Amino acid sequence: MRLVTLRTAAGTRAARLDGNTGDPDSGTLTVLDGVADVGSLLARPDWREVAAAAVGEQIPYAGADLAPVVPHPGKVICAGLNYRSHILEMGMELPAFPTLFPKFAESLVGATDDVLLPPEDPHLDWEAELAVVIGTPVRRATEQTAAAAIAGWTVSNDVSMRGWQFRTAQWLAGKGWERSTPLGPALVTPDEWAPGPTIRATVAGELMQEASTDDLVFSPAALVAYISTMITLQPGDVVLTGTPGGVGYARTPPRWLVDGEVVEISIDGLGVLRNQIRAER
Amino acid sequence: MRLVTLRTAAGTRAARLDGNTGDPDSGTLTVLDGVADVGSLLARPDWREVAAAAVGEQIPYAGADLAPVVPHPGKVICAGLNYRSHILEMGMELPAFPTLFPKFAESLVGATDDVLLPPEDPHLDWEAELAVVIGTPVRRATEQTAAAAIAGWTVSNDVSMRGWQFRTAQWLAGKGWERSTPLGPALVTPDEWAPGPTIRATVAGELMQEASTDDLVFSPAALVAYISTMITLQPGDVVLTGTPGGVGYARTPPRWLVDGEVVEISIDGLGVLRNQIRAER
Repeated sequence: MRLVTLRTAAGTRAARLDGNTGDPDSGTLTVLDGVADVGSLLARPDWREVAAAAVGEQIPYAGADLAPVVPHPGKVICAGLNYRSHILEMGMELPAFPTLFPKFAESLVGATDDVLLPPEDPHLDWEAELAVVIGTPVRRATEQTAAAAIAGWTVSNDVSMRGWQFRTAQWLAGKGWERSTPLGPALVTPDEWAPGPTIRATVAGELMQEASTDDLVFSPAALVAYISTMITLQPGDVVLTGTPGGVGYARTPPRWLVDGEVVEISIDGLGVLRNQIRAER
Repeated sequence: MRLVTLRTAAGTRAARLDGNTGDPDSGTLTVLDGVADVGSLLARPDWREVAAAAVGEQIPYAGADLAPVVPHPGKVICAGLNYRSHILEMGMELPAFPTLFPKFAESLVGATDDVLLPPEDPHLDWEAELAVVIGTPVRRATEQTAAAAIAGWTVSNDVSMRGWQFRTAQWLAGKGWERSTPLGPALVTPDEWAPGPTIRATVAGELMQEASTDDLVFSPAALVAYISTMITLQPGDVVLTGTPGGVGYARTPPRWLVDGEVVEISIDGLGVLRNQIRAER
């Protein structure tokens, strides 16, 4: 099952996407009447049944105005340094523990929304990432119970303001910017997708990142289990699983995103984020 | 004005505290009918008038069961390394920018609740902190507009699991633990209190930290302004302003909190947090 959060004239609505396997323009949306977004859907223990049984208004997926697939997650926790081949090619040791940092609900944008380039930091960078959305409250999970708590998968671009990120040793100040971080297009349930397919980032049409989504030091279930040791992950919470090599700041010279450029993040079978960079005045 | 979030048989309620100037046992609470907590109160632009006009049930403050003063903040952003004299006595340079890291709503506990000592990390440490609660949405604020966006002040103990905190370079994994972080007892509005009075931490009756709350490199208004450059601070969001010298991990040998100990954090004029450490089994 594929689920999206749709913007309508009456506010956002959760919708089921049928007849789509990750391509941007095929399929039909069925609106889930009375369900504001995928986050509030997941707060219902019977969310799978509610979504599967929906028979509301149908509209074409092509051209739909998509909000972040979960617009108001309680927590967005991100992993750094998690692609094995990239760590090894950098000559680094594989880490013993996940590196974790936050984003915020206000950081998120939809799959085709503009990403804002703030005047305070011109060092805007991309990070293609596989994201996990939680479907069941989970604390001190084993990897097996963690896997069962994953409502589904989606795509994110962990856009980072590198100037602010590296002003201090803590990355929050470069990671939490308003309207910086695409999340979507759809939540895809685990019966339809599993890690392995390719993740890619292109900037202005140029391929920048390409990796297998199962080349992780800490699998998505391992990350969920680890975070859940510390704190309860709630339905709608989002975990970003890290980015492969090829980001802008690691290039020589560094490559920053500029006003008007389009960044595309895709994961085969999950979908595509296509966001234009827009300088704030 | 002083505001608390009270636990009642019917769930939490915001309440106004009259006849109290920070001592734990004096004063009377007036319940704000229909207002679940101080966070939902602050979401109303007319919160000051609503709170001042409340004439609901009155109960004695002594023995009241207090929730975190804001139980469900959208964001909890904390500053590290912010007490000037402590930085200088460590022989360090004053930082050019605030060091920021997160906690989460689930991390919070009330002013007299137990703090949980998890079996996964015995290196439990205290950090006495002045906390700010936001009352007005604020983005790209000057220090002046930031100051005007502060609904009030409260006390926090930025309890930290030092083992997990230092597993990687990012502190989140030691800072976000469930039911670790007292916040309260009351929100005190800026007409009744301003930074300057003494903050103290005692552990099992022994004085561990003592400083002036105006000895900050980045004032509360400067922190709010800085964070608001990045992202909108919303009503009910919480900013912790850093801790002075005297925490457990900086002692020789390190001093960790153990099961059954009582940690007391006080700020003159704001109130006292008195929390017992309870080992989770």
